Amino acid sequence: MNTPREDGFYMPAEWAPHDGCWMIWPERTDNWRLGAKPAQAAFAAVASAIAQFEPVTMMVSARQWHAARTMLPARVRVVEVSSNDAWARDVGTSFVVNQAGELRGVDWPFNAWGGLQNGLYFPWDMDDAVAAKMLQIERAPRYRAPKIIEGGAIHVDGEGTVLVTEACLLAADRNPGITRPEMERVLKDYLGAAHVVWLGAGVPHDETGGHVDNLACFVRPGEVLLSWCDDPADPHYHVSREAETRLQAAHDANGRKLKVQHIPMPKAMFFQAEEAAGIDQTAYGMNRRAGERLAASYVNFYIANGAIIAPEFGVETDVEAKRVLAALFPDRAIIMIPGREILLGGGNIHCITQQQPKALNS
Amino acid sequence: MNTPREDGFYMPAEWAPHDGCWMIWPERTDNWRLGAKPAQAAFAAVASAIAQFEPVTMMVSARQWHAARTMLPARVRVVEVSSNDAWARDVGTSFVVNQAGELRGVDWPFNAWGGLQNGLYFPWDMDDAVAAKMLQIERAPRYRAPKIIEGGAIHVDGEGTVLVTEACLLAADRNPGITRPEMERVLKDYLGAAHVVWLGAGVPHDETGGHVDNLACFVRPGEVLLSWCDDPADPHYHVSREAETRLQAAHDANGRKLKVQHIPMPKAMFFQAEEAAGIDQTAYGMNRRAGERLAASYVNFYIANGAIIAPEFGVETDVEAKRVLAALFPDRAIIMIPGREILLGGGNIHCITQQQPKALNS
Repeated sequence: MNTPREDGFYMPAEWAPHDGCWMIWPERTDNWRLGAKPAQAAFAAVASAIAQFEPVTMMVSARQWHAARTMLPARVRVVEVSSNDAWARDVGTSFVVNQAGELRGVDWPFNAWGGLQNGLYFPWDMDDAVAAKMLQIERAPRYRAPKIIEGGAIHVDGEGTVLVTEACLLAADRNPGITRPEMERVLKDYLGAAHVVWLGAGVPHDETGGHVDNLACFVRPGEVLLSWCDDPADPHYHVSREAETRLQAAHDANGRKLKVQHIPMPKAMFFQAEEAAGIDQTAYGMNRRAGERLAASYVNFYIANGAIIAPEFGVETDVEAKRVLAALFPDRAIIMIPGREILLGGGNIHCITQQQPKALNS
Repeated sequence: MNTPREDGFYMPAEWAPHDGCWMIWPERTDNWRLGAKPAQAAFAAVASAIAQFEPVTMMVSARQWHAARTMLPARVRVVEVSSNDAWARDVGTSFVVNQAGELRGVDWPFNAWGGLQNGLYFPWDMDDAVAAKMLQIERAPRYRAPKIIEGGAIHVDGEGTVLVTEACLLAADRNPGITRPEMERVLKDYLGAAHVVWLGAGVPHDETGGHVDNLACFVRPGEVLLSWCDDPADPHYHVSREAETRLQAAHDANGRKLKVQHIPMPKAMFFQAEEAAGIDQTAYGMNRRAGERLAASYVNFYIANGAIIAPEFGVETDVEAKRVLAALFPDRAIIMIPGREILLGGGNIHCITQQQPKALNS
């Protein structure tokens, strides 16, 4: 089979028009506290917010289907798709389109962010089937990629540029021995791209090993928003400075220099004892403990048709974060949704969403 | 909520153009012998045949999804929908449309053909959710009906007439105490119909209690095909004669007398010891035994766009059955598929299929 690039398909930017958004219903009790009920309420709030702007499909196991159907607004489509956890960004298909507006999808192999070595749980077989199931529902052809990549490990500008971190894309626990040129080839072939911008580390304490979607994102061609830390005592101080240095030295696929915008990192937040106590301990699970630092970031937002759906954390920087987003996206509503319950599971709003770009027959 | 009739929706005849066909993948080992593998091959043959004429969607549990995806042609859409068994006709939605071509669906409550009294298995909760899940995938509104009815218990001519049997529609193990006028009201309201033609008993040994779709069907407005038995020693002899008498006395919604056509019943067939031995015995299952008679009928066929997909049984009457169908459907290909493995599970091709009528935006 050809690659998407050979067939003329590419991944559009997240700000391009969508036909909808896909999410997965959280339920595993060794990641989500109190039987996942608080997380389900948080996911439902995100789905409800996005559904005001574009169609939302929630993928739910047979066990939780009725519960989800009841907790979600009628306009949200609820389909039965099983999974090992609830990260539609990472396990869902990365949709691609061609100039004629046809829809296809890339199915990245998935190993729970590090396989048997560093993966967050075992097994991950149902997660790895989610992309194929999404594409079956949409009757869209599927490209199975040759290397392990999560959707949260890539950002694109829709004009040929891919933004990634070395921490994830060159990780030995994903694709042992892979070289930078080999990975660039995969990214270009499967995202229909021409140029890769490499950052180094991701946000400290990020369980994915450092997904770019928790650190930085394109807000338009030639412009990147970076989670920024001004406290030299915080490990993210150095990470954000290194990222800025690299971004300022980089160019995009069109040869443009990149404009770098900052959004504050929220103050350090930690797993509370009460929160950790509500999570099942298991042999192959996350086994979270009180006092662990949470990898909070405002960059982890979703761009919907006409809106930005971003996390807030009940801290002082929420106001500034919303102001930054409003300035960067003047034509979109800025909707802040409480993100702590999602953060407790290891990610945020961008991690739990996956856009479906607008296609011809839609 | 209104009824479909109040909203201007009705169930089209099966011969009206389809957008596709829905099926469910068989897997329960207390109904399908040898781990359901022979039944899966038979269902795959039916799906492959129909897929030559219209899109087919196969609903499959998470457990069997990959197996089904591998055994089915690429053009068959495979979606994850769990169920208790594999009867898309009975547990699937009965799709309805309006004059503008909008699509909706009726979700009949389901109790496994007789509930705790005479039902074929327990529980049936996942079966009862299949219709809602189909409608979610299609983004089509759902009407939950007020009475227990299976899709195989009704046939419509698309012009206001419903064909049913008293054996099922007035059964105390479905809707205790329901009267004929009450049931006629439900049928008219939910199928957008104006007149009900009542037959009495169904085919003997039919485990459903006597579904009309194993006994007789409309082949066009004003014309009914009846499974016919000429052997006075066979219990179906009297059933088929009683049905003919009733049909000849009946009229349709447009006041037409009904023309009655015959198709031979195949010779008596029975569960073989080897076949029964391959089926799990369980506390709440079917517990089939060697020597049980099978309710074989050629009437149990599916009308696809441009084709009739009908069962054959490897017996002498197969030739005559195909001739009858060819004469009645001169504009359609007649595709005969080995039906014994489906019959062993308690039904045939019509029972395992559910048409989706052509809608406006398709």
